[in-house]
Amino acid sequence: MPKISQKGISMPESPIRKLVPFAEKAKSKGHHVYHLNIGQPDIKTPHGALQAVKDANIEVLEYSHSAGFESYRNKLAKYYQGHSLDVNADDIIITTGGSEALLFALGSTLDPHDEIIIPEPFYANYNGFSTSNGVNIVPVMSTIDNGFALPAISEFEKLITPKTKAILICNPGNPTGYLYSEQEMKQLTELVVKHDLFLIADEVYREFAYDGYKHISVMSIPELANNAIMIDSVSKRYSMCGARIGCIVSKNKDLMKAAMKFAQARLSPPTFAQIASEAALDTPQSYFDEVITEYKERRDVFINALQQIEGVQVTVPHGAFYCVAKFPVKNADDFAKWLLEEYNLNGETVMIAPAAGFYSTPGVGMNEARMAYVLKKDDLIKSAEILKEALKAYQQVEK
Amino acid sequence: MPKISQKGISMPESPIRKLVPFAEKAKSKGHHVYHLNIGQPDIKTPHGALQAVKDANIEVLEYSHSAGFESYRNKLAKYYQGHSLDVNADDIIITTGGSEALLFALGSTLDPHDEIIIPEPFYANYNGFSTSNGVNIVPVMSTIDNGFALPAISEFEKLITPKTKAILICNPGNPTGYLYSEQEMKQLTELVVKHDLFLIADEVYREFAYDGYKHISVMSIPELANNAIMIDSVSKRYSMCGARIGCIVSKNKDLMKAAMKFAQARLSPPTFAQIASEAALDTPQSYFDEVITEYKERRDVFINALQQIEGVQVTVPHGAFYCVAKFPVKNADDFAKWLLEEYNLNGETVMIAPAAGFYSTPGVGMNEARMAYVLKKDDLIKSAEILKEALKAYQQVEK
Repeated sequence: MPKISQKGISMPESPIRKLVPFAEKAKSKGHHVYHLNIGQPDIKTPHGALQAVKDANIEVLEYSHSAGFESYRNKLAKYYQGHSLDVNADDIIITTGGSEALLFALGSTLDPHDEIIIPEPFYANYNGFSTSNGVNIVPVMSTIDNGFALPAISEFEKLITPKTKAILICNPGNPTGYLYSEQEMKQLTELVVKHDLFLIADEVYREFAYDGYKHISVMSIPELANNAIMIDSVSKRYSMCGARIGCIVSKNKDLMKAAMKFAQARLSPPTFAQIASEAALDTPQSYFDEVITEYKERRDVFINALQQIEGVQVTVPHGAFYCVAKFPVKNADDFAKWLLEEYNLNGETVMIAPAAGFYSTPGVGMNEARMAYVLKKDDLIKSAEILKEALKAYQQVEK
Repeated sequence: MPKISQKGISMPESPIRKLVPFAEKAKSKGHHVYHLNIGQPDIKTPHGALQAVKDANIEVLEYSHSAGFESYRNKLAKYYQGHSLDVNADDIIITTGGSEALLFALGSTLDPHDEIIIPEPFYANYNGFSTSNGVNIVPVMSTIDNGFALPAISEFEKLITPKTKAILICNPGNPTGYLYSEQEMKQLTELVVKHDLFLIADEVYREFAYDGYKHISVMSIPELANNAIMIDSVSKRYSMCGARIGCIVSKNKDLMKAAMKFAQARLSPPTFAQIASEAALDTPQSYFDEVITEYKERRDVFINALQQIEGVQVTVPHGAFYCVAKFPVKNADDFAKWLLEEYNLNGETVMIAPAAGFYSTPGVGMNEARMAYVLKKDDLIKSAEILKEALKAYQQVEK
């Protein structure tokens, strides 16, 4: 019998999905499960995006250009320019989700065994993309005690070796919700320019900034012209995760030439979804105003409720729609399984994503979990109530 | 300025697309270009597939299951069973095109510097997928003189080393149109079982078999249960290349478990396109009968016309919709450029894909080109006429 590759063996399982069998068991018992574990918004996709697909008159569903529709790239460039980002259509390659944009970025900047520095906790699938590219993640620790702010630049510098080719940030952060400040972006700029590194910025939550805080894109920093690679996606912005449309953006011509060869090998991004994504650019500002207001209210309600639970530590995130909370438990993984397998409050329970899977350093974040506030306010209030009562009950279990 | 990766530098350019700027020049002169270079069929996509997307009532365009819709996998399994292939829904992961299925197959079976044996000439993007996975292609030569039949098994055995993990075939073949016989499939089966190798079969042209020849799938050979990986796609079957839906199929549980981890990392295949692909399974047999008849007629007309050109060597392919022809020129790449840059017959010219890009061995296939018979019969006849006249004129140029 032939053996699979070492790579196939060491590909990590998604920490978000590994509890799914436990959730199914809870549901089979008739329990309602509040899904705080996954960033699948319940917000409606803009009508215009869906209607454009219905209205398209297609006779032959052809390949598109490998870099995506020219019309879409032009319109997308205008959208970025409207947000004060220095992006032209030539700086954009449309990809199959932000996921593929990340694969192209890693493939174009790192060779096998090269190193990429990522502040942890980080989006768990960065592990999978790094493994599939044969490259090594070098984590630099951010902590819940200062709300997951950027680690000191001296901590980055300690980790830089000749094999370091890039730094990857997620801004605003998944799983932390942290939004990097102007000062932090300036420090990162100096660092990557000094050491000739690429700065890959996953900015798929760009629109989700609250409390008057402003998102600062790598594409708005002139000094980064050669170093910056922006990863973007329509998934969260327009609540169309199933479209699978994203893009890789850079003004570095060598980088874009390499990325284009990866793009050509896979032929083209999906056509229907490009039609929807191009139309989504006409979504009125009122849609975002409503969505942002809704998320801000959800955040306020949820974080406030969490902060009132004895022993729970959580700071107020200013971006995205996630938070990482520390629970008064030894092992959040065991707690998450117990919530699904053993616990219910009036026939309801919650599903959370244990945070250890978002850290690269073993043994860290064991009592933390990521939660997404993508549910209605009433459901978030109920979820926090369930967590509060569950934590009381769990103290007896852990003894 | 940061440097891109060696991988990014060595990613091959697509031999199909590198002549595009020359074609654009021809068009800017007002010349009509017959595109024989790319396998983009002009056949209409089944109405039901397109209508299903229009009819879908989506409010939130959500992620689908990472392995694709369960309903689609169930229906697809039935389709395969109807074609006598031993495939259950659990043996299928839906992918973003056959391209992604190939990436998952290579990632799950080969580690960096491992070797995969592929009969050449082969689909050029196998180069890109291998480079992006850091694995080495070991070519085994098939030749135009016997219509690109399977090379002798002894030739394969000479190339097998401890690093050899898989053999990859394309059946029916792109670029050759060759359909492997029962005898050849039996030989391959014995070879991979003996050496514990995976046999990855790209079967995206399965339906396109002519002259009563039958396609033999790796999934119909019981001895291959642990060794076979089938790559499939809706692109050519339903003329919906822009959907970007394919699948990886195997009964090897370890392999599927690894592939699933790659699938989870990229979240899900595109939703709209899955809706279209699921509906496409209801396409009546009459659609295929018409399409196959049309392609067979196109092949007959085109190959016949090519065979009548002095100095052109081409055999009758029994599958897919490509052929590789040998031209009486020194360098088919120069000839292809000249056709676009310098030549026209009454304001018309043709675009062909030089075959050297389909060979891994340097210097081989220099006077061959791949042509796709995806145009209407009249256009194919005109294309052959243009080639005939152009070859006469080119003899003066090459002198």
